[in-house]
Amino acid sequence: MKALSTDHLLGIKYLKKEDINLIFETADHFKEVINRPIKKVPSLRDITIANLFFENSTRTKLSFELAEKRLSADIINFSAGQSSVKKGETLIDTVNNILSMKVDIVVMRHPNVGAGVFLSKHVNARIINAGDGAHEHPTQALLDSYSIREKLGSVKGKKIVIIGDILHSRVALSNIFALQLQGAKVKICGPTTLIPKFITSLGVEVETNLKKALEWCDVANVLRVQHERMDIKYFPSIREYTQLFGIDKALLDSLGKKIVIMHPGPINRGVEITSDVADSDQSIILNQVENGVAIRMAVIYLLAQQIKK
Amino acid sequence: MKALSTDHLLGIKYLKKEDINLIFETADHFKEVINRPIKKVPSLRDITIANLFFENSTRTKLSFELAEKRLSADIINFSAGQSSVKKGETLIDTVNNILSMKVDIVVMRHPNVGAGVFLSKHVNARIINAGDGAHEHPTQALLDSYSIREKLGSVKGKKIVIIGDILHSRVALSNIFALQLQGAKVKICGPTTLIPKFITSLGVEVETNLKKALEWCDVANVLRVQHERMDIKYFPSIREYTQLFGIDKALLDSLGKKIVIMHPGPINRGVEITSDVADSDQSIILNQVENGVAIRMAVIYLLAQQIKK
Amino acid sequence: MKALSTDHLLGIKYLKKEDINLIFETADHFKEVINRPIKKVPSLRDITIANLFFENSTRTKLSFELAEKRLSADIINFSAGQSSVKKGETLIDTVNNILSMKVDIVVMRHPNVGAGVFLSKHVNARIINAGDGAHEHPTQALLDSYSIREKLGSVKGKKIVIIGDILHSRVALSNIFALQLQGAKVKICGPTTLIPKFITSLGVEVETNLKKALEWCDVANVLRVQHERMDIKYFPSIREYTQLFGIDKALLDSLGKKIVIMHPGPINRGVEITSDVADSDQSIILNQVENGVAIRMAVIYLLAQQIKK
Repeated sequence: MKALSTDHLLGIKYLKKEDINLIFETADHFKEVINRPIKKVPSLRDITIANLFFENSTRTKLSFELAEKRLSADIINFSAGQSSVKKGETLIDTVNNILSMKVDIVVMRHPNVGAGVFLSKHVNARIINAGDGAHEHPTQALLDSYSIREKLGSVKGKKIVIIGDILHSRVALSNIFALQLQGAKVKICGPTTLIPKFITSLGVEVETNLKKALEWCDVANVLRVQHERMDIKYFPSIREYTQLFGIDKALLDSLGKKIVIMHPGPINRGVEITSDVADSDQSIILNQVENGVAIRMAVIYLLAQQIKK
Repeated sequence: MKALSTDHLLGIKYLKKEDINLIFETADHFKEVINRPIKKVPSLRDITIANLFFENSTRTKLSFELAEKRLSADIINFSAGQSSVKKGETLIDTVNNILSMKVDIVVMRHPNVGAGVFLSKHVNARIINAGDGAHEHPTQALLDSYSIREKLGSVKGKKIVIIGDILHSRVALSNIFALQLQGAKVKICGPTTLIPKFITSLGVEVETNLKKALEWCDVANVLRVQHERMDIKYFPSIREYTQLFGIDKALLDSLGKKIVIMHPGPINRGVEITSDVADSDQSIILNQVENGVAIRMAVIYLLAQQIKK
Repeated sequence: MKALSTDHLLGIKYLKKEDINLIFETADHFKEVINRPIKKVPSLRDITIANLFFENSTRTKLSFELAEKRLSADIINFSAGQSSVKKGETLIDTVNNILSMKVDIVVMRHPNVGAGVFLSKHVNARIINAGDGAHEHPTQALLDSYSIREKLGSVKGKKIVIIGDILHSRVALSNIFALQLQGAKVKICGPTTLIPKFITSLGVEVETNLKKALEWCDVANVLRVQHERMDIKYFPSIREYTQLFGIDKALLDSLGKKIVIMHPGPINRGVEITSDVADSDQSIILNQVENGVAIRMAVIYLLAQQIKK
């Protein structure tokens, strides 16, 4: 049986192309499962998974939980707000304690960049990074690529533009790594104040004119304007942002071709994207959510196979 | 097999009398189940239910969760406080995202009147209203009627008085609809400032004298004084309220007959009802809680049958 | 089959020596179970357990949840923050409501001393005290003794010193009762302002010199400095505390013998204990956490057998 080349899912930058292919093939299988009347498989009855969320999350947490339930794993949930993180416990102690309770896999979202990598060196469990600060969010990038592959047949050779606040986005970074690894062409589009200087060193082009970016691309992955991460000094006002980088139906129809619209959610309707664009037949936003469960089932399943070997 | 005439449980006002009968017959069966040593049935192994609580709740949430677990459904819980509702996501987006994860039934409590009806028109899932603002709380009314039927043999022809803050109560409105549909006579009793003007148009009488109301009735359904919903301008003080509308043992014993005491909980002991009344053998308050699980199992089970057809 | 002499686990002071032996023998069995690939047993499929946490907790709550899941019990969780405790509901009403939903066992943490005992007299369920104020925390003391027995062969005749804030510690009191019942010798060590006057009446000696205490003992159970319970008037500053009662590697190595280091967690690394002590091979801190799940499985299992009789 094929296996991942890694013991953890810490970031896309630690994956090989073959790993992504294996995850996608496995997700194909699980996508069939979750569309059957009985959506569960008994595969991971002997696995215990801890979901450690040190930051708020709706869809990512629910998506992981559903994926775990459909694999019949045992689950324990830990959210920072309800817990003794407030008591000043260190991350390693928290996780070591949880692992001493015989946990096999840790899914973690944490505000600090590199929290997952740090943890993987100090604790004896498989770590899945569910978002570390503005760094990586690998399962989101995997489900994004999987959704492009599903819609367009493949990722290779496709032109994808990522639009919005690249500076604060873990989704952007993981997507760049994943898309390039699969042979796609990637451009970045957004206000210059929200594009980090190092981005061109990754081999992506920057295009500050939205219309030009859209005319070039096959797929537009529109990021959320994250009010809560904004520093008022650097950011254009919401009004200016929408004026310059918001996508409405008129703009979409003016392109003379049907590009694919993606968004990791949650959408600010009327800010980065209007409702008629989000709900149009060019949008695969809800497919992304559906595919998220299948991708997460695949990642968990494959890492669990490593344990059993 | 008999089936509900509706795809959702949005409010009692959308039910027929036959629907209520069918729910009660089904609840009779489940009440037997939950009094067996093994309290679970494998009926809904293929159903996933999302509990979306946009308002605090203890007993309603626990009651639904237990009902779902005893039907062996898969459950995902979502509470507004822990989630990205704070991020400004719209209700439709939140729910559509959850549904894209292949959820079959949504149980929702929401502060806005009509949130369930609105949702049912925009998403592809069965909706159960677990309370929408001061509007309806249909499972509470069903378990209240079911408890009266259990105690007195039937609801038809019985005289029920609902006492307290009718203005802010979703329990009152759903109860009026349910009781009238089943042929009971309903009176309302409370401070005039807490009785909405439209209430007489529903065919219920208003009685502002508590003693007269109790002398008339077979059953007194005593509502909770909801401190947190009160507008200080209109409300009598708690002291005045207890003086005029609080029920104590002396008053109860003075009636010359044994009326049934109900309360949807949580009780303000010593405010709307004293402890010796709440704990007396005329009280069926804890039976209401027990019946709540059976009623919710019945509603979920019947709606799930609609999906399978 | 052997059975506990009590219907609840309210505190160590209500247990007999035979009860502790029975719990340890049962835990031995479950410790084997949780180290197998399939960590679950179907023993308690017919039991519903409510976890009521009226205070924050990480490890205790997770440990109980895992123990319950591995026994295949049905679980409902209730945390005070998310619930209508805020609405002024009394403890008895809260729990009676939950019990009316057919709950068999209640695990409760509560800020008030005696909350469990009070509850056990008023509701019809088995109560497990998961910590009541600064009073008792019996499962912690059981897992502590169990871990000493595992490390040193037995508890009888061993010399244990409990170090730290005895005044605010439920762990200290339960440990004193448990250790004495099993024939260990117990000393207390800490700032005089944090040692309650009544403690010598329990037959324990007070030693205010840390080095002397450590030279005397076989096992040092180091308590957490609980910033949040401190009254600034009585307490030495953290700096003074660490100076006088903090344990570092140099101190440990100076003793000329290898004592066992325990800590109930969460650790304030660098305050009551340094990292090299916490992580040394003399520390059994993580074993305590692992044993916690086995001990809790044993307690729940044995109380459940009482119900079935």
